[in-house]
Amino acid sequence: MPVPHESPLSERDYSAVELCLDDAELLVMDQRELPEREVYLRLHTLAEAHDAIRDMAVRGAPAIGVTAAYAMALAARAAPAAPDNFLVEMSKAAMRLNASRPTAVNLSWATARLLAAAREVMSHTQEARAAHLAEVARELHRADVRANRRLGALGAATLEDGMTVLTHCNAGALATGGYGTALGVIRAAASQGKRLQVIAAETRPYLQGARLTAWELQRDDIPVRVVCDSAVASLLARGLIHAAVVGADRVAANGDVANKVGTYSHACALAHHGRPLLVAAPWSTVDLGCPSGAAIPIEERAREELATLGERQLLPHGVGVLNPSFDVTPAALVHALVTERGVASPVTAQALAELAHAPEGVGGS
Amino acid sequence: MPVPHESPLSERDYSAVELCLDDAELLVMDQRELPEREVYLRLHTLAEAHDAIRDMAVRGAPAIGVTAAYAMALAARAAPAAPDNFLVEMSKAAMRLNASRPTAVNLSWATARLLAAAREVMSHTQEARAAHLAEVARELHRADVRANRRLGALGAATLEDGMTVLTHCNAGALATGGYGTALGVIRAAASQGKRLQVIAAETRPYLQGARLTAWELQRDDIPVRVVCDSAVASLLARGLIHAAVVGADRVAANGDVANKVGTYSHACALAHHGRPLLVAAPWSTVDLGCPSGAAIPIEERAREELATLGERQLLPHGVGVLNPSFDVTPAALVHALVTERGVASPVTAQALAELAHAPEGVGGS
Repeated sequence: MPVPHESPLSERDYSAVELCLDDAELLVMDQRELPEREVYLRLHTLAEAHDAIRDMAVRGAPAIGVTAAYAMALAARAAPAAPDNFLVEMSKAAMRLNASRPTAVNLSWATARLLAAAREVMSHTQEARAAHLAEVARELHRADVRANRRLGALGAATLEDGMTVLTHCNAGALATGGYGTALGVIRAAASQGKRLQVIAAETRPYLQGARLTAWELQRDDIPVRVVCDSAVASLLARGLIHAAVVGADRVAANGDVANKVGTYSHACALAHHGRPLLVAAPWSTVDLGCPSGAAIPIEERAREELATLGERQLLPHGVGVLNPSFDVTPAALVHALVTERGVASPVTAQALAELAHAPEGVGGS
Repeated sequence: MPVPHESPLSERDYSAVELCLDDAELLVMDQRELPEREVYLRLHTLAEAHDAIRDMAVRGAPAIGVTAAYAMALAARAAPAAPDNFLVEMSKAAMRLNASRPTAVNLSWATARLLAAAREVMSHTQEARAAHLAEVARELHRADVRANRRLGALGAATLEDGMTVLTHCNAGALATGGYGTALGVIRAAASQGKRLQVIAAETRPYLQGARLTAWELQRDDIPVRVVCDSAVASLLARGLIHAAVVGADRVAANGDVANKVGTYSHACALAHHGRPLLVAAPWSTVDLGCPSGAAIPIEERAREELATLGERQLLPHGVGVLNPSFDVTPAALVHALVTERGVASPVTAQALAELAHAPEGVGGS
């Protein structure tokens, strides 16, 4: 089923999330079904949107942020008429969404923006409030795509023609409003005529690299091969990887980066081989209120993700797991942080503080 | 189905490989079915044994060596009566087995031993030749278990009570004649009363860590938890792993270690965190004819291993992979090589040369 939308904000013929049908229906691609099936969920309530985030039908920090913004708009349609009750209900909605996944900061960033917008229009009619929140969410979505394109162009300057570039998880159109962060950098470089080869680490346990990144890049005719996460170090040793570019779920004020588990594993191997790691993320992923990686909550997910795949049992009954969904890469191992506000390299607290004061789209160190 | 054998050489109630029924039948556990089903293949010909190795029903360098030895014994039963023709046939059998999997040196080591034994008895009756080769293979199997026990005891001395120990892939009873190399070290430490926790990296793409190591350790009541390969670095950063012990498929003369892909990834992370990596292997895994890791052939396996799991398609059609089955860890990143002849630490060409001249079970540096 194609996205039933004439000009999806994603600027592609698929989209992680779109608000449709007079703002009453949220279309979310069920990414758990990729690459076998392209299926869209039709969501109409806050609860449904919450579950889609928690159960990873939609994933990727910026896409989660956009989905949460739209979920707030759906919540506004169902909220009580009285202004005070409306605000109480919207606060509850924000808290509920924030709890769905703890690591990506874009989630609470987006709900805070929609909550502020709700406050501004609390005294309006129900219809006017809902329309306003839908428009604010849509603008947040558009801004995410703009930020992706801008940071993509900035990051592309660091990649050279002929390079083989590693990426981990999926930080593409499916993980964002539309264009991608890490894959935005790769897309921008490719659109400049640079011939890149991409190595996609498959990214256990959810296999976003194999299922999503390979799917996206294949559709863009960008050469991609998939490898086991654990093969990356040996490919570096054989000189088959020249640089890495990944997304982020939260960047602390000192530049430490939380991203999909495995990023730090690659960072150790990249450092051992003197190859650069680029982190590409919109400014909404930077959490200046979080002093360092040690303060970032790391989501621990269910045993089931490691124990089963489809019908297949991969683990003996009764054997437990550790399943952290993210890891933290210290700023010192990140060669550059690429945002729409500019590039921080080296990645330091001071460089981030400078970007914080830069006008959007300019500046950088 | 239990092993239909009263005292399997494995000293457990399961076994990777056993020769039965008046030496006419090779029982090989089909490890692809674990942990869901304990199924034994009944093999009667060289061709069947070759396929069981190639298709990874049996895997693990020492277990492959033992299987190849028994396969040579099966080949002797079917070989022509004339001494010259017998030797030609046995040479062909050895070459065919050697080609089934290129990285583990135990395979060619075992077939060379059986070929030498065949030469000694080439003029005997068919029946006497077959009986002799079966006995030589069985003794090679027994010697592997003895070596495992001895190196297990030597390695156990390096592990301390209360440690959490990482292991990768499966270097246990299922990978050897019976006791295990890396898991032999862990078993020996546990039998000395040391309370160890084991972290088993799941080991994509075949998941030997999740399916086999967890299964073995659970049966021995040794606490084990499974993690994604890519989570290991973050667990090191959190102080949750104190040391690692793995097996090997081939150790070069300079101490470089080829082992299941991912070992080198862990080695980079262990080095970054100053935690020791122990490699446990019988002397049959040491290839003094191979100068360094660069000379070790690395098996590239099929796309299918990454692309599918059961019925599930994990990769888009048409997307390629890189699937090296092994990687090479430079000797400098290995804290100690534990063999039945002694422990090399640091792991250097000189230390290995000294062990080569040590009587079996003594010596070391």
